[in-house]
Amino acid sequence: MDEKKSLSDYLPFILKREHIARIEGEEILIGDRRVYPFEKRFYSCKSLEDVAVAIESMVTQGGGPVRAAMTAMLFLARRMESGREPAKAETIEAARKRLSSTRPTNTTMARVLGILTERLTQALQDKQSPVAVVEAFLESYNRRYEERAFAMARTGASLLSDGDGVLTMCFAETSFILTIALAMEEGKRLRVYTPETRPYLQGARLTAPCLEEIGADVTLITDNMPAYLMSQGMIQKYMTAVDIAVKDGWIANKIGTYQNAISAAYHGIPYFPFSGDPDLSRSGRDSIEIEERDPEEVKKLRGIPVTTETMKAWYPAFDIVPPHLIAGIITPKGLISPWQLGYIYGDEETAL
Amino acid sequence: MDEKKSLSDYLPFILKREHIARIEGEEILIGDRRVYPFEKRFYSCKSLEDVAVAIESMVTQGGGPVRAAMTAMLFLARRMESGREPAKAETIEAARKRLSSTRPTNTTMARVLGILTERLTQALQDKQSPVAVVEAFLESYNRRYEERAFAMARTGASLLSDGDGVLTMCFAETSFILTIALAMEEGKRLRVYTPETRPYLQGARLTAPCLEEIGADVTLITDNMPAYLMSQGMIQKYMTAVDIAVKDGWIANKIGTYQNAISAAYHGIPYFPFSGDPDLSRSGRDSIEIEERDPEEVKKLRGIPVTTETMKAWYPAFDIVPPHLIAGIITPKGLISPWQLGYIYGDEETAL
Repeated sequence: MDEKKSLSDYLPFILKREHIARIEGEEILIGDRRVYPFEKRFYSCKSLEDVAVAIESMVTQGGGPVRAAMTAMLFLARRMESGREPAKAETIEAARKRLSSTRPTNTTMARVLGILTERLTQALQDKQSPVAVVEAFLESYNRRYEERAFAMARTGASLLSDGDGVLTMCFAETSFILTIALAMEEGKRLRVYTPETRPYLQGARLTAPCLEEIGADVTLITDNMPAYLMSQGMIQKYMTAVDIAVKDGWIANKIGTYQNAISAAYHGIPYFPFSGDPDLSRSGRDSIEIEERDPEEVKKLRGIPVTTETMKAWYPAFDIVPPHLIAGIITPKGLISPWQLGYIYGDEETAL
Repeated sequence: MDEKKSLSDYLPFILKREHIARIEGEEILIGDRRVYPFEKRFYSCKSLEDVAVAIESMVTQGGGPVRAAMTAMLFLARRMESGREPAKAETIEAARKRLSSTRPTNTTMARVLGILTERLTQALQDKQSPVAVVEAFLESYNRRYEERAFAMARTGASLLSDGDGVLTMCFAETSFILTIALAMEEGKRLRVYTPETRPYLQGARLTAPCLEEIGADVTLITDNMPAYLMSQGMIQKYMTAVDIAVKDGWIANKIGTYQNAISAAYHGIPYFPFSGDPDLSRSGRDSIEIEERDPEEVKKLRGIPVTTETMKAWYPAFDIVPPHLIAGIITPKGLISPWQLGYIYGDEETAL
């Protein structure tokens, strides 16, 4: 493995930093995941409010919102420095509040914005350059993000053997795509199976095209097929992201993750979720609230109805997997037993 | 339960006999399940060949083809009787062959057509009316079909309790819809959950609208949700049709049936498949061949692409459930243990 290659060298189009969010002149451009892979379109924002609206309307998702929010703060710092925006603590606090409100459950984004707000406010008091402060923060954030992504992906790749069939679910983003890239680089031949992940189709629209782009052997299936593939001996490992991992080893992720984990256990297939930041302030299944989204999504696919207009539907967006269905959680500290997650992370402040 | 009500009184639009296939003047009209529930359209056939093409192109499916084929034979008998078609054994045999070839795996249709061909050929030799012979056959077929449907549905309804949540998969047709109708008639309050059943959406397009039409409390979900509903205590029973049940209690049904059965067992929820005609000529998992269909279906939904054009996909259409995941098979003879299916049915010829 060539350590000189940067993260960006490995990543497919939509996961590259500049395609998630970047500033170009007086605009913030956000990669529009709603239309990918049918179009590679960038959503143009002329203000911080535009960015907030973009995040709210799902232009970007997963790890995208935190990067879009940081880019919006850099944009604000530039405008303050050039005098087009009042360089006041109130302006920064209002920005933090507006951006954090876009995704109340995205605790990573809230934490990042909190720290950035503190540093920016301090910079104003100290008459330092706001732009320099945000740029320094971004640089350290990026370095740490890259180190942690490589650490998790190296662990992920070490768990894969030549000839393995790998099942995933939804869009496990950088950690998973990089895992597959590193394993391939080590000469391991893999087959990856991605369920389409209804109703939003993250598997079909994001995961499968990303894997196709990096040259992986990927096959798209529907969400009702994973157990059948397992019964045919086609799956050796099951890997997903998590939306949240709590102290005593329960995790929540996109709906469908749970039933695949049950089927994997039934067939003796290990399940390895990736978790960059376990939430040690919570423990147990009851600490996880499952977001219910608009049932209209279930009744449509890319805007096309699948049933009668009057039909009742239900859309729980996530589900919860108990620790006994998890073989190990892939973290920046290596593979950790779900039973030891709290012990290993201890009371350590999850640093940025 | 009012025994005077006929099967048709209970059934929703697409399951009523005259909406599956009927003769009107010089046409055979087949209910077009491809466009249901968005349109209630009938596919018009002017010849037996048209009917064969309709069956091949999925105008009707499930229990539809056998009824469409019998209707085509009645159409042929009428044409022979009125002299528009040569009243010869060869004509009848050619019709049997053509219709049977439309669905090589539909053994019920092949068997029905075989018997009908014998009787028609005999009728010609005996100078009897071909139409009278087919009509007599249809009458006895319908009477037996109705008796068996009620027998299975009474057993199904007896397994449901007031307040139950019932999960199904794909489109379990008359036995299941009638089960729900009879249980509701007994005053049982039920909630039925139907996964959409990708890629063909039988759950969203057929099962859910049929249940909605008979006034059941039905909720549409996607195929990645069943285990989550089970974990929330929302499901008490799991019921599906089978495409085939073999001697030693293995069954095959629409893809997804298997993983729901695994999740049901994990949560202690009994699984009751309906089987009108176990195939005692086969035994064991290896005797069941899984049909693979065009992977393009997985890459589209109602014609709309869900991924890149170049993506590889796979579409195994059915999966196989082992007897240890089955609580009991609902048959016209009552609820039978999968372990005793061969014993109970013995060497009995599955009569028509």
